[in-house]
Amino acid sequence: MSDVQELLNKAQKPTEDAMRLHPFYRGKTQTAPKCAVRDLDDFSIWYTPGVAAPCRAINKDPELAFEYTNKGNRVAVVTDGTRVLGLGDIGPEAGLPVMEGKCLLFKYLGGVDAVPICLQTKDPAEIIRTVKLLQPAFGGINLEDFSQPKCFRILDELRADPEVTIPVWHDDQQGTATVLLAGLINALRVVGKEIGRARVTMVGLGAANVATLRLMEASGFDLGNLVAVDSHGVIHAGRADLEAQKDQYRDKWRVALKSNRAGVRGGAEEALRGADVCIGFSKPGPGTIKPEWVAGMAKDAIVFPCANPVPEIWPWEAKAAGARVVGTGRSDFPNQLNNSLGFPAIFRGALDVRARTITDGMCLAAANAIADFAQAQGLSDDRIVPSMADREVFLREAVAVGMRAQEEGVARLTASRDELYALADSAISEAQRMTSVLMESGIIAPPPA
Amino acid sequence: MSDVQELLNKAQKPTEDAMRLHPFYRGKTQTAPKCAVRDLDDFSIWYTPGVAAPCRAINKDPELAFEYTNKGNRVAVVTDGTRVLGLGDIGPEAGLPVMEGKCLLFKYLGGVDAVPICLQTKDPAEIIRTVKLLQPAFGGINLEDFSQPKCFRILDELRADPEVTIPVWHDDQQGTATVLLAGLINALRVVGKEIGRARVTMVGLGAANVATLRLMEASGFDLGNLVAVDSHGVIHAGRADLEAQKDQYRDKWRVALKSNRAGVRGGAEEALRGADVCIGFSKPGPGTIKPEWVAGMAKDAIVFPCANPVPEIWPWEAKAAGARVVGTGRSDFPNQLNNSLGFPAIFRGALDVRARTITDGMCLAAANAIADFAQAQGLSDDRIVPSMADREVFLREAVAVGMRAQEEGVARLTASRDELYALADSAISEAQRMTSVLMESGIIAPPPA
Repeated sequence: MSDVQELLNKAQKPTEDAMRLHPFYRGKTQTAPKCAVRDLDDFSIWYTPGVAAPCRAINKDPELAFEYTNKGNRVAVVTDGTRVLGLGDIGPEAGLPVMEGKCLLFKYLGGVDAVPICLQTKDPAEIIRTVKLLQPAFGGINLEDFSQPKCFRILDELRADPEVTIPVWHDDQQGTATVLLAGLINALRVVGKEIGRARVTMVGLGAANVATLRLMEASGFDLGNLVAVDSHGVIHAGRADLEAQKDQYRDKWRVALKSNRAGVRGGAEEALRGADVCIGFSKPGPGTIKPEWVAGMAKDAIVFPCANPVPEIWPWEAKAAGARVVGTGRSDFPNQLNNSLGFPAIFRGALDVRARTITDGMCLAAANAIADFAQAQGLSDDRIVPSMADREVFLREAVAVGMRAQEEGVARLTASRDELYALADSAISEAQRMTSVLMESGIIAPPPA
Repeated sequence: MSDVQELLNKAQKPTEDAMRLHPFYRGKTQTAPKCAVRDLDDFSIWYTPGVAAPCRAINKDPELAFEYTNKGNRVAVVTDGTRVLGLGDIGPEAGLPVMEGKCLLFKYLGGVDAVPICLQTKDPAEIIRTVKLLQPAFGGINLEDFSQPKCFRILDELRADPEVTIPVWHDDQQGTATVLLAGLINALRVVGKEIGRARVTMVGLGAANVATLRLMEASGFDLGNLVAVDSHGVIHAGRADLEAQKDQYRDKWRVALKSNRAGVRGGAEEALRGADVCIGFSKPGPGTIKPEWVAGMAKDAIVFPCANPVPEIWPWEAKAAGARVVGTGRSDFPNQLNNSLGFPAIFRGALDVRARTITDGMCLAAANAIADFAQAQGLSDDRIVPSMADREVFLREAVAVGMRAQEEGVARLTASRDELYALADSAISEAQRMTSVLMESGIIAPPPA
């Protein structure tokens, strides 16, 4: 009981620190110069009159924006605040602390210059249009925390639009799926079960699980062996509510048609009985997934309760109920399946070849790079993915993504593995060194005691 | 002749440096952390799970975004690229070097975190809508380089819209006018002529001159004593083309009705005959304003050829033709009437009181702060405005703007002069120290020889 209390206290600590430190720093990202300012005369180079020359050159050839500006390393983190973490529709202002946090991670882990954009609209058509309008100054767009079903339409339309010439990525779909797949590949390695035979239960079938499922299929998982559950129970083709919404939720209907070969009926409890893997992206817990349901899973069960900010079941509860490998989205427990392991390096690799999009193939390449790196380091129940401290994994990922982009013909530049490695290494090292330098110099003050 | 050649070479130098250094640095602004990252565990404060707490708080009270994020110091520099410098409609990509330069100036001179936003549309309604949608993450919007007449409509509608809760500023109108007015006040002091009796000729009647005229009227200039010229000649109420467009160009029609009491007809040459002041915001020169026209002006003439990137007449030509005080928009000549003297400090003051808008009164307060500061330092023909190196003027301006915002009831916060001074001093000092620190540490590489 004192152990549980200690863990609960530990889980509470970041919240207390956040309420103390967010007002202290008033924000997590700022603008910094990228060029030398030796003295004020330099502004005749960076602004009028000198700046007219690169403007004229880009006017003749818009691709030169990648050479003469920071377009090629700048990413917009765009939200409408309708599904922020597990907090629901809290609005664009309230989403800003998350977007700034995301921008901080982009910089620190990927050397990417990200900017928060919180839109005062919930209309999908207007969001799509706005993202298209924002393109000229950005090398990529990271969509974040849009509610479903609009998140599917927004991503799908933007990826399919020939007028969109930079990667548009929805991190809650592609990013989360990429990291989860990496963790799942290694968890199955740890427990010695095969991808093709694993029985997987998905609790929740929102943006993250739908995208995960698409990548899982591409990796050799058998969709017939999977059972998915939403808030109305097990997904199957007999459910009239799903059929009625099949145009809005196309992927969900495809799951209803192709999954659950065994014909399971009921809710999460029934779906989990005998399962090898539980992947939860549903309501924040604890209590969303009950310990007795985990107890009913197969031997050496893998449980990934990934709801934010509180997992569907606390890791210690899942372990006590018999789970062998447990991973969550939180950084304060082992096996963090947080998309921070994915998006910074995936964008790094995509930006370094000036990719026009990020394909599912590039996501798979990243997932395999993450999984293989952790495996080479040695896997265990509590170490199925690298930690964010393993800088090397980000470099491997960026290289894998950049190479795959070239293979698939979506890269504007050609670069060798070595060149991509060096580019990623330099960008990420410099971002972390910048952080140290700003802290050592006191530009970033130390946190109050 | 060798003097002229030397000056022409000097004027060419920034262009050569720009084409060498823009590709070297690949951009002029980047994202930096604003908070401490002691180790990776800190991401549980800055991102999930800790970040949920400030999100919840802002959801309850959206004004808390100013306390828990960098909203209050973040400004969007928005363009559609339709009138970039004097280069015309070169498109949003080609406008990006200017927008990044503007962001650099915002940071270095005002401690403001600005972000370039180049929109892929020319439609004024869509631009207005997009600016409204962008509000949640920003404390202010700086409109830049929009063509006329849409720039008037965009600014006027956004300033009048009750759903717009942050300052929206068009620097080519308000910013340019503020600095020009400061320079004009002091140029008249230098030559010993009175504001109320000065005969002013405006060459060009676009965004900058229309806005200048509005501020001049508010400062005591006699509009009847002014003659304006556009590309079709002297402005007067008898011109059918102006009457036909009076809804789109409302201010211009007002000038036609109220200016030119003497009934001057003809073009710029006639309008300049006997004038005390020439203010040019027209086509880039040289040759747009001819030396013989300047020769026809009154004794101790003041000539401000402000076209970018090349003034309507070179300063040395204007001086040779008899002008006593000459000011341009360029940083490589004396008397730079560049808006860099205005917008960084005006936004600094506006942001520090969380102003809801920037009124004309706040612009006047800034203009007087600039003029009075230069006067106190000592005026001369070649020193009518402070240089950008006079840090103190930015602080005085910020204080004047912040105090005026409070007097006019558009500030969310109350602060004393001393408090505003300290805030501005700290923000600007730290921005410049950040630049030094990044250069000394090599994060920003030295320019190649």
